[in-house]
Amino acid sequence: MSNQDFDPRAFRQALGSFATGVTIITTRTEDGEALGLTVNSFNSVSLDPPMVLWSLAESYRGYEAFKKASHWAVHVLASDQEALSNRFAGKAEDKFSGLELEQGINGNPLLTGCAARFECKTAFQYEGGDHLIFVGEVESFEQCDSAPLVFHGGRYAHATPREAKAGDPRHPYLAGSFDENFLGYLLGRSHYRFYSQIRPHLEEAHLSDEEFYLLSTLTLKPTMTALELDTTMSGILNTSSAQAIQSLISRGLAHPEHLEDGDDQPPVLAYQLTSEGRKLALRLISAAKVVESQVNERLGHEDSTVLRSLLVRLLDSIDPEAASLWENPDA
Amino acid sequence: MSNQDFDPRAFRQALGSFATGVTIITTRTEDGEALGLTVNSFNSVSLDPPMVLWSLAESYRGYEAFKKASHWAVHVLASDQEALSNRFAGKAEDKFSGLELEQGINGNPLLTGCAARFECKTAFQYEGGDHLIFVGEVESFEQCDSAPLVFHGGRYAHATPREAKAGDPRHPYLAGSFDENFLGYLLGRSHYRFYSQIRPHLEEAHLSDEEFYLLSTLTLKPTMTALELDTTMSGILNTSSAQAIQSLISRGLAHPEHLEDGDDQPPVLAYQLTSEGRKLALRLISAAKVVESQVNERLGHEDSTVLRSLLVRLLDSIDPEAASLWENPDA
Repeated sequence: MSNQDFDPRAFRQALGSFATGVTIITTRTEDGEALGLTVNSFNSVSLDPPMVLWSLAESYRGYEAFKKASHWAVHVLASDQEALSNRFAGKAEDKFSGLELEQGINGNPLLTGCAARFECKTAFQYEGGDHLIFVGEVESFEQCDSAPLVFHGGRYAHATPREAKAGDPRHPYLAGSFDENFLGYLLGRSHYRFYSQIRPHLEEAHLSDEEFYLLSTLTLKPTMTALELDTTMSGILNTSSAQAIQSLISRGLAHPEHLEDGDDQPPVLAYQLTSEGRKLALRLISAAKVVESQVNERLGHEDSTVLRSLLVRLLDSIDPEAASLWENPDA
Repeated sequence: MSNQDFDPRAFRQALGSFATGVTIITTRTEDGEALGLTVNSFNSVSLDPPMVLWSLAESYRGYEAFKKASHWAVHVLASDQEALSNRFAGKAEDKFSGLELEQGINGNPLLTGCAARFECKTAFQYEGGDHLIFVGEVESFEQCDSAPLVFHGGRYAHATPREAKAGDPRHPYLAGSFDENFLGYLLGRSHYRFYSQIRPHLEEAHLSDEEFYLLSTLTLKPTMTALELDTTMSGILNTSSAQAIQSLISRGLAHPEHLEDGDDQPPVLAYQLTSEGRKLALRLISAAKVVESQVNERLGHEDSTVLRSLLVRLLDSIDPEAASLWENPDA
């Protein structure tokens, strides 16, 4: 779509196709007031001398104060600072309230926990349409290795590094067969491998994989009808849930009950964990969580967040009924 | 680490913590030569009038030509244009060779397949240390919905939207139990659910999940030793591979052989698929690939790429020996 008439919304949307990090720029006014706002028009300019730039709308309330400021600080936000970004993008009276602050050059308020900080002295202010372009000479900077907060297409995004070994593809010998990138194989292998780390605990508790899956499913709701259980288990495990649930019942880990569902309806068969069952489930789950935290650590917090978020979306797309399992009974 | 002495490498690294999209900027010189280079210092400036900016190093070979140019075009690169980015970041003689081009304002060479394009008229050129800041008034633009190419920390990255429903958490009723975000549960459920889509085909072929997994594993290499099979299957499936492989052999889908491994070594037991087994495996795998392509479509190409890339990294971190399965016998 070529656009000559500059529908501002279409233009803004086209600009949004350029992904950016998110920064908060702060300064201190002549009156000593701390000012700050969220900006994604930041970028680097020069290495020698070290310079960066950003643009400020003329309509911004603190425009004159920034224009007069000799110094300002750029905070490149980390992945876990989305709330901070929203706070400084809004119109709150005291955006700094309750935040841990450090003192920068010229008394500038410095935020903590960022991916990088640049303390700058205004070098140039240039006209740029309805914005003023601030070019600053960097007097001090610091950095820590954090995953970045990213903005793209008008919303926040995760960024995750591309595969380093893209140039080293591995191929199966048989054309048309699975290869390393086949999602089904990756899902299966990841799942089996993940559970192999807790299988010793399952064996010790004399639980099969199915029984453990059933036991953990029963922790999701206080009582689960046979229909809900079947929805979760059938088509998912080859064995029907009936056999596994009978095994849990015979071992005193779960018990059946009959829910009344209106006067003229037959009672509904449902199950719940016994206190023994809950205890065992929680013990095994906590072993699984140890595995999870090891995986998180090796993969990195941000990337494991992205992985989980993508699996949730995968499930939503191929398994829409899954959502109902996590309904909060208190809600 | 606070840094006053401006080690250029540390400064560049700190700047790299700000994620950016990637653009290619093109122009046509007075002599009619097409010029273009990869730039990530692009950003928006003004909505009214519509303006964008980018910075060019004074040391760049085509610096004078860009300085004289009345017009230039910004191409915001899409996720699948990493090779194009590398081509225009390099020093190749004719970077445009073999590319499909369109004619822009003033005869500017326009690249195709980008996430967005902005055709600009130079509005201002501003001093910025060792760079010149180009501010352009946008005369025309177009956009298509593509996942972006992203640059962060000195390397390319994927960007994937954050969960839209972060504000709507679902909780299990039992404190300490699995919740929807538990990776192990997500992996299991995704895997089972993925395979449930092809289970009718498996049932028709009278194959259990284990047998199918074994059959597909045997397509990875022409011959697989019993040890390699056990490495793949043991700890992964509860049943040892012995039972499943015997079942495949008795049905004429695979056959054992004994590999000679040096004069004084006993022969090594190995397996390969029969032509019947290969045929069945390829038929089932192609059914699985249909499921895969449906999932890709629903999840979006970029996000399913990210998902696979993260699962490969998950496996590399918890299952290092997996890599060896895809050794190319021709390599």
